[in-house]
Amino acid sequence: MGFEFNIIGKDTSSFARLGKMVTAHGEINTPTFMPVGTQGTVKSLSPEEIKKCGSQIILANTYHLYLRPGHETIKNLGGLHRFMNWPHPILTDSGGFQVYSLSPLRKIHPEGVMFSSHIDGSKHFLTPQMAIEVQQALGSDIMMCLDDCTPYPATHDQTKKSLELTLDWAKLSRESKNSAHQALFGIIQGGVYPDLRRKSMEETVKLGFDGYALGGLSVGEPKEIMREIAKTITPELPAEKPRYLMGVGTPEDIVFAVSCGTDMFDCVIPTRSARHGLLFTNEEKIVIKNARWRDSDIPLDETCDCYTCKNFSRAYLRHLFVAGEILAMILNTIHNVRYYTRLMERIREAIKENCFTQFKNEFLINKGGT
Amino acid sequence: MGFEFNIIGKDTSSFARLGKMVTAHGEINTPTFMPVGTQGTVKSLSPEEIKKCGSQIILANTYHLYLRPGHETIKNLGGLHRFMNWPHPILTDSGGFQVYSLSPLRKIHPEGVMFSSHIDGSKHFLTPQMAIEVQQALGSDIMMCLDDCTPYPATHDQTKKSLELTLDWAKLSRESKNSAHQALFGIIQGGVYPDLRRKSMEETVKLGFDGYALGGLSVGEPKEIMREIAKTITPELPAEKPRYLMGVGTPEDIVFAVSCGTDMFDCVIPTRSARHGLLFTNEEKIVIKNARWRDSDIPLDETCDCYTCKNFSRAYLRHLFVAGEILAMILNTIHNVRYYTRLMERIREAIKENCFTQFKNEFLINKGGT
Repeated sequence: MGFEFNIIGKDTSSFARLGKMVTAHGEINTPTFMPVGTQGTVKSLSPEEIKKCGSQIILANTYHLYLRPGHETIKNLGGLHRFMNWPHPILTDSGGFQVYSLSPLRKIHPEGVMFSSHIDGSKHFLTPQMAIEVQQALGSDIMMCLDDCTPYPATHDQTKKSLELTLDWAKLSRESKNSAHQALFGIIQGGVYPDLRRKSMEETVKLGFDGYALGGLSVGEPKEIMREIAKTITPELPAEKPRYLMGVGTPEDIVFAVSCGTDMFDCVIPTRSARHGLLFTNEEKIVIKNARWRDSDIPLDETCDCYTCKNFSRAYLRHLFVAGEILAMILNTIHNVRYYTRLMERIREAIKENCFTQFKNEFLINKGGT
Repeated sequence: MGFEFNIIGKDTSSFARLGKMVTAHGEINTPTFMPVGTQGTVKSLSPEEIKKCGSQIILANTYHLYLRPGHETIKNLGGLHRFMNWPHPILTDSGGFQVYSLSPLRKIHPEGVMFSSHIDGSKHFLTPQMAIEVQQALGSDIMMCLDDCTPYPATHDQTKKSLELTLDWAKLSRESKNSAHQALFGIIQGGVYPDLRRKSMEETVKLGFDGYALGGLSVGEPKEIMREIAKTITPELPAEKPRYLMGVGTPEDIVFAVSCGTDMFDCVIPTRSARHGLLFTNEEKIVIKNARWRDSDIPLDETCDCYTCKNFSRAYLRHLFVAGEILAMILNTIHNVRYYTRLMERIREAIKENCFTQFKNEFLINKGGT
């Protein structure tokens, strides 16, 4: 089955849109959020729990799976869906961002990037062609082109060179792809410079991909810059293709970016925060280890329908967290992932009802964000 | 509802028996195994998963819950069943064994035991009356008398003094109990000395309890001694009351002790081994990190019906374990707990079919046990 994307609704007071993506492993309603399953598992959740949380698609990290257990191993075991028992859509990143953020040594060459493994220090050379080969072995539904993630800060000149390399690699990625049922997205770089973002966008779109991602954000730049780029670039991307804002973000950032026309998000925030005992609710962010919850018999969020909120008190969750119990990680992650999928459901509902701007304004005011 | 125990079947070639226990939170088919939920959670499992594994009753540790979050806190939150969302039977130990095994400082007095918390070093004085008070606050279905766990090795004289203290405390425990819906079990001490075990048994039975436990075993003594005591003492315990072999044990020890007439077991082995990647199957014990499983597409145990075996390969489980993922703990624990509940199901089936001795012999030969 080929990849499809259809816009099925639009908000008239913003760029927000409602879409349906069709992949080889199922449909996805957009805007959507992808929990991060770095090593072939969304940390603390079984695939059954991920599905119960309402997630439609997860992200897996090519860099990690290439290093361990190895893409050939996974291929021989029937591909990533079967390996991790997640028969639903998977997007794999290209490894570019992880090489940038995790490798203790990284050297960029025109042909690819030399890096050392964060696990054992072994040296590897990743080319755009290899990134496709690895993702084809994993069998993900959506692949990403290898990109050179421009650091922040970087000069205009550095950024320009970096985006040109990303463009070269995008071309090579496109040419080396030979699997019909996997989609391939291009990544737009250009750092914090509007002219370079535009150039990157135009050239990437010229190459032609199944979808387009904004990369190189959430790398340390001020939030305002990220939002400004999302606001400027997103609406200009081809309307008929899915748009993906990589590595974003907080609930507020997501709501903002949806208003700019973004369809897809991924971020470690819900899962990582959960493991650190920071829990999202419609009222406030809860630091579960706080002594004020010691005797609290209420659920995290009265309005939430997740297993955690339906069955456990804040006092119990605090106890588990303070006692260092694994169940704390499990229950907290269930809640935060469900919070994110419910947020996306609310976003889709607001677009459908054509009241997204009102939803956004209320949401951002309540959260105190802008 | 009061506590009841009925023998519903007997194996004619051994002392093995089939029973049904009725508690305020439900019935339990015996012989039964209780997973250990030390801090109000069976490590790595949600209560939903515990139930799916087939567990009928869990054990919680009074010592841990008394120290954190505190029995009054749990009482105010509706008791332990509600606190941890486990509406099924719970047995609480008395804290005696944990004071013995965990406290960095322990001093026995006639009135109770002075100990320091393993969490923050704070000093506490636990009396038999308090142990009952704490367990009544927790609201468990089966309470245990505070006992003085005799160390191994100990002289005959030390052991005698220790068991006499345990007897005094058993009397005080019995007198201070004032909750009708909670059962109270006496604990038989006496170390490795058959005459002292017999004395402890006789005196404890004279006091009269809802059930009887063999304590002070699995504390470092040779396995043969533990088995010898189980074999000698268990059949002499009152036939109409449940018999509980505390802290035991391996699958082989359990099968052996069932043949002596034991009805109840608890042990950290299935859960702790799971977290260390040691997995039980009908064929062999599997060390999941072993490189030989790297490409293994088969489940842990083809005959097992647990979520782990139904959905994941050894290769995936190895990957999760090597990668340090929390899901490794979860999936491994699900399997090991299910292995133990299936073992108990097989044991009950064999007793029902009056072929337990054959089952035992085959089981112990296959495992290379005695």
